[in-house]
Order: sequence, then structure tokens, then C-alpha cells
Amino acid sequence: MLANTLPTHDAALSELTALLGDRLSTGDAVREQHAHDESWHHPEAPHAVAFPETTQEVSEIVTICARHGTPVIPFGTGTSLEGQVVAVEGGVSIDMMRMNRVLEVNAEDLDATVEAGVTRKKLNAFIRDQGLFFPVDPGADASIGGMAATRASGTNAVRYGTMRESVLALTVVMADGRIVKTARRARKSSAGYDLTRLFVGSEGTLGVITEVTVRLFGIPEAISAATVSFPDIESAVNAVIITIQSGIPMARIELLDEVQIEAINAYSGLDNPVAPTLFLEFHGTEAGVAEQAERVGEICQEFGAGNFRWATQQEDRNKLWQARHDAAWAAKAMKPGCSLWPTDVCVPISRLAECIVETKKDLETTTIPAPLAGHVGDGNFHLVFLLDRDDPAECTEAERLNDRLVQRALAMGGTCTGEHGVGLGKMKFLQAEHGEGLAVMRQMKTALDPQNIMNPGKIFSI
Amino acid sequence: MLANTLPTHDAALSELTALLGDRLSTGDAVREQHAHDESWHHPEAPHAVAFPETTQEVSEIVTICARHGTPVIPFGTGTSLEGQVVAVEGGVSIDMMRMNRVLEVNAEDLDATVEAGVTRKKLNAFIRDQGLFFPVDPGADASIGGMAATRASGTNAVRYGTMRESVLALTVVMADGRIVKTARRARKSSAGYDLTRLFVGSEGTLGVITEVTVRLFGIPEAISAATVSFPDIESAVNAVIITIQSGIPMARIELLDEVQIEAINAYSGLDNPVAPTLFLEFHGTEAGVAEQAERVGEICQEFGAGNFRWATQQEDRNKLWQARHDAAWAAKAMKPGCSLWPTDVCVPISRLAECIVETKKDLETTTIPAPLAGHVGDGNFHLVFLLDRDDPAECTEAERLNDRLVQRALAMGGTCTGEHGVGLGKMKFLQAEHGEGLAVMRQMKTALDPQNIMNPGKIFSI
Repeated sequence: MLANTLPTHDAALSELTALLGDRLSTGDAVREQHAHDESWHHPEAPHAVAFPETTQEVSEIVTICARHGTPVIPFGTGTSLEGQVVAVEGGVSIDMMRMNRVLEVNAEDLDATVEAGVTRKKLNAFIRDQGLFFPVDPGADASIGGMAATRASGTNAVRYGTMRESVLALTVVMADGRIVKTARRARKSSAGYDLTRLFVGSEGTLGVITEVTVRLFGIPEAISAATVSFPDIESAVNAVIITIQSGIPMARIELLDEVQIEAINAYSGLDNPVAPTLFLEFHGTEAGVAEQAERVGEICQEFGAGNFRWATQQEDRNKLWQARHDAAWAAKAMKPGCSLWPTDVCVPISRLAECIVETKKDLETTTIPAPLAGHVGDGNFHLVFLLDRDDPAECTEAERLNDRLVQRALAMGGTCTGEHGVGLGKMKFLQAEHGEGLAVMRQMKTALDPQNIMNPGKIFSI
Repeated sequence: MLANTLPTHDAALSELTALLGDRLSTGDAVREQHAHDESWHHPEAPHAVAFPETTQEVSEIVTICARHGTPVIPFGTGTSLEGQVVAVEGGVSIDMMRMNRVLEVNAEDLDATVEAGVTRKKLNAFIRDQGLFFPVDPGADASIGGMAATRASGTNAVRYGTMRESVLALTVVMADGRIVKTARRARKSSAGYDLTRLFVGSEGTLGVITEVTVRLFGIPEAISAATVSFPDIESAVNAVIITIQSGIPMARIELLDEVQIEAINAYSGLDNPVAPTLFLEFHGTEAGVAEQAERVGEICQEFGAGNFRWATQQEDRNKLWQARHDAAWAAKAMKPGCSLWPTDVCVPISRLAECIVETKKDLETTTIPAPLAGHVGDGNFHLVFLLDRDDPAECTEAERLNDRLVQRALAMGGTCTGEHGVGLGKMKFLQAEHGEGLAVMRQMKTALDPQNIMNPGKIFSI
């Protein structure tokens, strides 16, 4: 699986074995587990996988790798979507999942500090009894370190922000093994450069995130959810735009197109009307939720919506959101044996209806099924191409559609990825998106990782 | 006013004159206007002041300065509070105030793009008719470019965030004259490093901000404000902590101590009870504001508060907040002829009561008046020392009190500055606050400004 031209890194591996014993694995099965994420990108295995248990150990691992010029690839739950963890130049994957302790919950300050391998569901289970929750929800039960590294967001971001807003501080092991704490727990600070935001979204290319301090929120007094279907996708998106512009503090406002609805009906045994559908959630006081729901109901009706289905009990809400989160699996079931190629873009919300309508028109010209779902309150939506990997024509066609999607978003003032990150899949669009800014990113990378050992080959080539 | 040992930069000035004509000023009066901000720091004049009118001109100015190794100091309204604009190594101040056009308001997207010299009040006047407002409010009518550069925040940050959250994108002229756009208008993006946050809070040390895209909000349907006084400062702070923990979406929650209240009563002809006092503001629907106000009222009463004074009419609210914003001038009037030494720290809110109580105890041991006010919903508070600059004993004493304040905040997991920035005044605390992180900041600075011409001598020495 390793290209023959890669160096073998024997000296580094031997020092790492001395450090970690059987917590350094070179077995094929483990290496292949760490060769891929959930994306369509070609897997490439690392030479070895390290399983550190402390920040200090991560520092020692990176120090050894730096001495030998060995690539370092941080690895969490492997649920990234653009090939972020593929070991394109070999090297050592650092599997962070044994660093899975919740270190500190400060209920009074509404924050918690966790090791990078704690998943969002684990944190939420840990803090639920204190009436707290961590809102960022990308669907997968991702590690919080990985979510920080990819600047993840998801269904709740419209109300609670993305990882950009949710991370208060990080502990990071730099490319030379130094351990850096990016900030303190104070809610705001003007004390120098924003090191926290430097690493959030850096996808492992600047350092290994080992601890994360995140903002928490009180579980709302009242929560209510609903689905509502629309005559066409433009009406659904316009209802979202008016809702956001009205300042209604939506907790979630998600769009699934008729293709995706048909898929989840089949997959989850549901009977939603096969039409563009919004999934809504309201958080607040009892009176506040009722007021929000009434206003949004009125807006939706103005756009011809019908078939409101309310879910106020937790069980019903869980069912509703599970169906939303299963969208990708439901899509996969539409075309047995297919591979998923998920992609996402984000545009200013004023251009969202136009962008989605044009994208849907494009999809009419192809035979590749591509359900659409989106965090439309943020102007962010996803396609997932269902393709036969062994059919080069289908791969070429998906690439063409993806290119057109991204170019359309860029032309509308948008970005090539709202939340999946760059990884391998979006690298080719960064010059068009950032222009001279890409050179600045390269300068930062070169300054902080002069040997280019941190997750090399991702975001940009050096 | 210029130290004799500084180079004269004659060649640079002559090229700049050729470029700008009489928009390059070397007159003493103009230079002295640009020698200081509103802080206590010793003024140092630049060799010249440039008044560019376009980003392209800023780029040409910086290119000339880079060629000659001439320092560049971006200058807005001169309302910074830690000496950020003092020309400690001479050079050229770039006065951004002729770049004062609102370039674009996207009401549907709730954003606007302005040139760096547009002030927050000018932007708000411009967008009010569209039912929109820009919430970040540091008190002074600062330029939006300057607010981005210092990561400003202020009274509304508890609800609407600081400049960290408010800036969507920047246009920046780098140290070599390159023009970089840090991001697009999409609400979220995972497309590479967060260049926007790299420059927000960099205080002119990495580049000159020439354009800013900011988030806007709809003017709330209902706004209500109130003052309420407490038997002691601990009760007031504890009421704030419970309010924040309860998830009540306060628009403003400000503390003034009894010293500051006495000062504003005298200055603004008010009759507030001389006691620790919270200034509150609620934003929302009519019903939502009423519900919030009732809940906060109950919390305050549990902590022994009395003398609620409500202001629902805009005129009454303006009067209330004008008094709050005049706090520094009111303080100055307490000791005629004094100089103001403002300082601020920010701590996790669980430590806020303790931090303020210990600070007040410290102040009992000194003869220097130091009113306290704070954006306590964020854990952020200010002291302003009223001192006679010509009395070395008073200066030494203020320095001792400031040192103790910062060390107390750091010991509690806080930061040496919540919103004033580092400038000259907080440089000496950064090593203690950031440790190895400070070295990372220096690496970034050196990579992006290898000649150290961008606002040299601020944040850290190189």
C-alpha cells in the first residue's frame, strides 16, 4: 500500500517503539484502518500508528519524527470527509483516541476542557446531569480534537456557532515538539495574536491538538422541533432567508431536497411527503419557543408550506434528527454498492436560493444521484454523489459536477467548503478562493513547520 | 520630539511626497496629533503622516517604506488605550480617516463592507433606515479598522460578540505591500487558515487593515434598559453570574462601582444611589424582553438589589448609556488636572467576584482614586487610575497596582487585557500569560514582517 519511493523511516520507528512499546503499531490491519477517512479519496497507509496517552508523549513522538523528517498525521475518529487523515507521504499517524478524558468541567463558567480524543457525544453524556450541553454537531460522533482541527460545525451552528466560536483554548504540540497553550479560559482577550483560531481549521498541518477547552450552554428550558414541506426548493430557501433576516434565533434550520427525503423515508421507514423539506428546532423558554414557532410557521405558510409535523417530546425529536443525521447512509442505500462522494459549499444567504436552484438544474443533466441537504441558515449545503468508484466515467462526471458547484459558489462570493475542510479534495480551489491569501497561509506554514512534516500534502502543496 | 538616534528616512519621505503630494505631512502639529492615543503612554511623533485614500495607495506607501526599512504605524481615531499608535521608532503614520466610505451594505445577508476609517457611529447612522445595526460598542466612536486591529469589544459583546466574532473579512496590506483579502462573505468556511482572525487583534504589527466586512443585526423589535443598585459589589457580581448561567440573552450587563457612580452623578447631574450598580439592557420581542426583565429582576432581588430604574423610551436609554460611556470623563473630573491611566483585565466569570473584591481591597491601601467599571457579563472589568503624571510616586504607585491587578487576573486563569489590547502597556505581561505561545507569535511576526517595519515595538520586542 505504501509507494516504494517513500523513505522507510526505520530509525524513527525504532525510537518510537522504544518510547511506546506496543503502543506503536506497524501491523497491516491497524495501518489500513488509518489509511482513510469517510471520504472517496484514495487510501494511503502510514508506516506506523502511535497511540499516545498524554500530551507529553505526543510531544516526544513529534520530537522524534522531527529529528528524522518523518511525517506526522493526527488521527481522531476518522470521520473527516476530504481525506484529511490519508497518509499521502506515509509517516506516523498519531491516533488520539486513548486521550479520552474529560479533564475539567467548569459549570459556573460554562466551559469544559477535554483531551482531543473525547467525542462530542461522550462530552454531552458527561455534562448532561449538570444541565449543560456542547452544541456543535457535525452528525458523526467525531472527536472534539478532530472537530477543532477541521473547524467543524453542523446543524446547530446557525444559533451556537461553529468550532471557530466554540473553542476557547487549545493545547497544541508544535512541529518541533514544543507544547503550546493557545489561550486562557477568559471569555475574551486582546492579549496578542489569536493562536486559538490559528489552529482551529488548520487540519493538522501546523501542530497536533491534544486538549481543547470549549464553550458549553445550559440545556434550554424548552425545545421544540418540526418538519415542514414546500412546493419547491426556492420557496423553502426563501422561507429560511426571511426567518434568519427576522432575527428569529433558530437552533436548527435544515433543508433536505425531495431526493434526500425519498432516501430517508425508505431508509428509516418514514412517510414524509416527498418534497423539499425543512427540519426546524427552537430553543428557549416555554413562551419564547412558542412565539418563535408561531412566527416561523407564519413565514413558512407565506411560502406555500404545508404538512407541519411537530415533535416536542425528546423521543420524537431524537427520531426526527436521527433521520436527518442518517441522510448520508440513506443516500448510500439508494444505490447499493455505491461509494459516497460528499462535498459542501457555503454562500452568502442572499445567493443561496439561486445557488441551490442552479445546482439542481445541473444535476438534472446527469445520471449520478446526488441528494442535497444543508445547514441553510448559514448558507451552507451539501451534495453527496453516489457513484461507482470502478467506473471512471462516473468519477469524471462527479468531478465535473463538483467543480461546477464550487465555481458557482465562488462566483457568488462563497467558499469552496463551509465545514468539511480542504484536506485533499478542495486543494485545487484554494488559489481561486484566496488569491494572494494562499501565499500568506504558505508563509505561516513554512514558519511554523519548516520541514513540512505536519500532515504534509493537505490544504496546499509546499 | 524625535530621538536623535533614529534614522531620518529622508529617501522614503521624498518618495512618499512624490506619491501623495500634500497628503504627506511633516508639519509639527500633524505629527504631534499622531504621537499619542488616549492612554497615559509617553507620546512619540512619527517622521511624517500619510493620508491615503485607497487601498492601492496604502499598498504603495507600505512598498516605499519596506524598501527603506521605514516603520509604518496605522492610525485611526487615536482612541486606543495602550499606546498602540505611539511612533516609538518614528517612521510614517498612516492616517486611515480619509478612507471613510461605506462600500456595500448587504441587508439580506446582514453584513456591510466599509473602509477602515468609517467609525462605528457613522456606519450605524448609515444603516439605521434599513432596520440594521452594528453592535460592537467600545464607548469611543472608534474607526472600524482600528476596532478590528485591537479586537475591540465593549458593552454589547456579552450578546453580540467582540470584533473577533463580528469581522467576516478584511482587506489588508502586508508588510511588503501585497494586498490580501482574508475571506469571502460566506458566514462560515473551512477553506484553510483563518486569516481574518490572524489580523483581528494584531494591532497593526502584521499589516494595515484597509477594508472590513462586518456582521450586522436587525434592530430588535423591543429594547428596554434599567439600572439597579446593590448593597455591595459581591452581590452585584453574583447577580450577574447567575443571570449569565441562566442563559438569559442579556444585550448589556455592566457594573459601575460606588466610586464611579459618584463620579457620573456629579458629571452628568444624575441622582443614582451611590452604590455598586448594574446597567442592564434587554433586546428581543416585546414578550421576550418582558420575560427577560422579569427574570433578571427576580435574580437581582435575591441578591438584595433595589432602586430599579427603567428606561424604555429611546431618549431615556440614550441618557442612561451616555452616562455609562462618559464614565472615564466623569472620573477625570473627580481630580482636576489629572491624567487617566485606564487598564483592563478579564477572568473566568466564576472568579469575577473574588477578583473584583480583592482589587477593591487593594485600592483601599492607596490614595490614587481608581473607579471601577466593567463588562461583567464577559468577566471583563476596567480600572482607571487618576494620577498626577508629574508626580513620580503616583506613577510608581499606579504601576504597582496595575501589576497586582494583572497578576491577580492571570492567577485566576484570566488575561492581562480583555479588550484594550497590548500596545506598549501590557507587553511585560505576555510572557507570563502565554509562555511558549509568545514564541509562536514572534515566529508569525518574523515570517510576515521580516524587517519588523509594521508598528514596531508593540505587543512584543523583536
